[in-house]
Amino acid sequence: MRIGLMGFGKTGRAVASILLESQITKLHWVVRRSTLLEHRSVPEFLGIPSEEPGLIYSKSELSADELLDRYPVDVIVDFSSASGIDYYGEAAAKRQITIISAISSYSDLQVARLKKLSKRTVVMHSPNITLGINFLILSAKILKNIAPFTDIAITEEHFKTKPEVSGTAKVIARELDIPEEDINTVRAGGIIGVHEILFGFPYQTVRLKHESIAREAFGNGVLFALQNLQGKKKGFYNMETLLMPYFNLDYLPDQLNAVH
Amino acid sequence: MRIGLMGFGKTGRAVASILLESQITKLHWVVRRSTLLEHRSVPEFLGIPSEEPGLIYSKSELSADELLDRYPVDVIVDFSSASGIDYYGEAAAKRQITIISAISSYSDLQVARLKKLSKRTVVMHSPNITLGINFLILSAKILKNIAPFTDIAITEEHFKTKPEVSGTAKVIARELDIPEEDINTVRAGGIIGVHEILFGFPYQTVRLKHESIAREAFGNGVLFALQNLQGKKKGFYNMETLLMPYFNLDYLPDQLNAVH
Amino acid sequence: MRIGLMGFGKTGRAVASILLESQITKLHWVVRRSTLLEHRSVPEFLGIPSEEPGLIYSKSELSADELLDRYPVDVIVDFSSASGIDYYGEAAAKRQITIISAISSYSDLQVARLKKLSKRTVVMHSPNITLGINFLILSAKILKNIAPFTDIAITEEHFKTKPEVSGTAKVIARELDIPEEDINTVRAGGIIGVHEILFGFPYQTVRLKHESIAREAFGNGVLFALQNLQGKKKGFYNMETLLMPYFNLDYLPDQLNAVH
Amino acid sequence: MRIGLMGFGKTGRAVASILLESQITKLHWVVRRSTLLEHRSVPEFLGIPSEEPGLIYSKSELSADELLDRYPVDVIVDFSSASGIDYYGEAAAKRQITIISAISSYSDLQVARLKKLSKRTVVMHSPNITLGINFLILSAKILKNIAPFTDIAITEEHFKTKPEVSGTAKVIARELDIPEEDINTVRAGGIIGVHEILFGFPYQTVRLKHESIAREAFGNGVLFALQNLQGKKKGFYNMETLLMPYFNLDYLPDQLNAVH
Repeated sequence: MRIGLMGFGKTGRAVASILLESQITKLHWVVRRSTLLEHRSVPEFLGIPSEEPGLIYSKSELSADELLDRYPVDVIVDFSSASGIDYYGEAAAKRQITIISAISSYSDLQVARLKKLSKRTVVMHSPNITLGINFLILSAKILKNIAPFTDIAITEEHFKTKPEVSGTAKVIARELDIPEEDINTVRAGGIIGVHEILFGFPYQTVRLKHESIAREAFGNGVLFALQNLQGKKKGFYNMETLLMPYFNLDYLPDQLNAVH
Repeated sequence: MRIGLMGFGKTGRAVASILLESQITKLHWVVRRSTLLEHRSVPEFLGIPSEEPGLIYSKSELSADELLDRYPVDVIVDFSSASGIDYYGEAAAKRQITIISAISSYSDLQVARLKKLSKRTVVMHSPNITLGINFLILSAKILKNIAPFTDIAITEEHFKTKPEVSGTAKVIARELDIPEEDINTVRAGGIIGVHEILFGFPYQTVRLKHESIAREAFGNGVLFALQNLQGKKKGFYNMETLLMPYFNLDYLPDQLNAVH
Repeated sequence: MRIGLMGFGKTGRAVASILLESQITKLHWVVRRSTLLEHRSVPEFLGIPSEEPGLIYSKSELSADELLDRYPVDVIVDFSSASGIDYYGEAAAKRQITIISAISSYSDLQVARLKKLSKRTVVMHSPNITLGINFLILSAKILKNIAPFTDIAITEEHFKTKPEVSGTAKVIARELDIPEEDINTVRAGGIIGVHEILFGFPYQTVRLKHESIAREAFGNGVLFALQNLQGKKKGFYNMETLLMPYFNLDYLPDQLNAVH
Repeated sequence: MRIGLMGFGKTGRAVASILLESQITKLHWVVRRSTLLEHRSVPEFLGIPSEEPGLIYSKSELSADELLDRYPVDVIVDFSSASGIDYYGEAAAKRQITIISAISSYSDLQVARLKKLSKRTVVMHSPNITLGINFLILSAKILKNIAPFTDIAITEEHFKTKPEVSGTAKVIARELDIPEEDINTVRAGGIIGVHEILFGFPYQTVRLKHESIAREAFGNGVLFALQNLQGKKKGFYNMETLLMPYFNLDYLPDQLNAVH
């Protein structure tokens, strides 16, 4: 799979390193706003031995149409900013290039635009494109469904300087129908990121906990998305849509099923 | 629902207290091997104000047929021992009384017998009839299905004097296809019971953790089973069978589904 | 050691069971406000086989002077209420009976009164007389002393119906000079009691965590106090005073010390 | 303080970055075995803006005597390997330069050599020079002293590819007199490093837990050592020696002390 990557900040670089190291993807180019690293090679910049082209371009030197004509790709992965879609959206849709966007700051209008593009190509949007967090949310929803009156507490821990409540914790709260104000927030030292969803039953406690180690987790989330979008019809997807089939327990061994 | 309870050890008593306090069940009798508390009232013995009959009988004074003729019930809940089924199995099946057995020490032969009874009535068997542990096992199976090559570690902590690896941890290991010898076992002080399933991804960690607080959790598991067995056809069920429908994410909100 | 116990609520009973089972104490009597269990035997009431006298009296039937003349003890352990000291304080001091009070709701005046009594006998006061919590507080103070600019976060978890922030968490906050409003409070299900003090360093995290299992922990705290007050001069003590000698590392092996 | 650093592997680089950013230290040079980065500037190499000299030399181009004559320092910090001391030991001792060695793989002979050097200059040796781990060990020793018969369990978690039991866990076990075989070891994914010491009391549990975030923690440990070695007489020190004064609770507020 030929990949074009939008964005080359801290997370973009971590994702690039995972794409370079994966056997199933080829990183064809990176596009960013800044002209600072123009025409540098990503493998060389990151110190990762690789034969993949992976050159860095700036938005200002090439339009998306020019870019995609000269350096065609199968998928555009977007870790830039909310306005990235304005650059490549139309050009990608008309070429039926799959779009995977990990932008968390879209306005409602931009999400609507994304959905419109999804009538012409495969579009996936996930503001937290990690397996762990998305699995946590789905599991927690199920447990809430099993035991709807159980007390739920959400705690998130991050480094001292992180402002506000984490966006991920807000998503968890929204999905579980818990007021955002009830989230427990710890800010201390250099904690990378911990999210815990606690279910307090009268005589037992269940804790679903996610600990971040590094931004590269987003890259692995992209790989999972790439594999699970393969063969999909055009339409609008997210991580939960892709994870859903794995929650269908029909594939589970026979001994689980009632014997008649 | 009229309930008969087999067994009145520590767990049996905890389950009895939950059944007495529940609005949906009426505890009609308890049968135990010992004659020690014969004809005592369970509500009085446990100090729980209740109008429910709940008298204690011993196996030796009444056959199951006599018992069920005089004091008919809808469900027999078994927290006695592996041989309990020999006492009431046939008598229950022929009256189509639902059987919920929480015995963990059945021989293969006894399980086979249970399955045979399930051709005539609803039979549920769960060696660990708590919502928390069973949810944990199913979630872990799903996560393993999503990420089959992830490292999994199982840790269990219990009070100093608990012999051997916990049966629950062994079930978890078996269900996740992990060698029993790899279970980490901590024995210290008075820890009631902790089970953790850790999924170690390269750049993130997911921990699914269950902490026991009291034996009454088994009683709540029984209530869940009672509610979810209602209207079920005769057959052989377990906690996983009953939990499965809650893992079907079709009930989840629309925004999760692809838009075409 | 002959012990008299004030108070026979849930915690008083748990403490009584520990005192009955200990080899170093003899429970001579229990005094409580209510006349409900008057003249019942504590061992019999708790179902603990024991030769110790342990009869229950009510405040109203005997003055403390009468009580201590008829049934002399070496130590009075107080788990009753703030007014307990009014009953036995003077009578104990004039007989130089050691007082161990675990009351958390004293007014300033009552604490002053306790201190005045301590000029005539050994008085110990600890509103949370468990080894674990007191050790946690002292350790945390030391770590704060080592690394005064480190971020500290306090979290406490308790059962759903526990009102307000836990008193123990407030003590921890006060001792570490952290605003009470910063304590993270989780109320969920039947959690018995968890306190965590987190130290967030830039590149590492230290967590000091205490989990309560049962009220009997207070009884073990009393035993520790009894052993460590032995031979002490009259004066006012608390758990920290008694724990302090164990923090003096001079007893530690030689290899720790500088070689000159 | 003028610092010379031995070693420039992953940990050496992390320590160098902390030394460059600290206000109290000036990194004068780095010496390493390899000639690969000879004469490169450390600030430039690490991308840290700094006026500090910090040039990289190889052992082969300069003897320690030449090095220390041309580029004198107050302290040598050693994160190289067991043989580093052979290079600079004698030259440092005769100039009374403080030695801080973080090498964990010394032979008994090399430790003896280090101790001999400590008769002529200040020598500090700590195989795990982080505040967190050393605090944990000392706290745990104290708690064991308070409650010598309590069950202790040590658990360590690290990334999948880490071979053997962690050296830090072995030190913890040795200091607490627990058989090395009893350490629980978890190897999974990319876990950076977790150590937990659990004290299981009959009715409560205390957990002392350390989580590593990044190697820079060693740099902060060096800064702590530098500050606490200031003004010290020549002799042999370790982290525990330096932490000990902070465990002396005499500095604690008056209300802790008995009133006579």
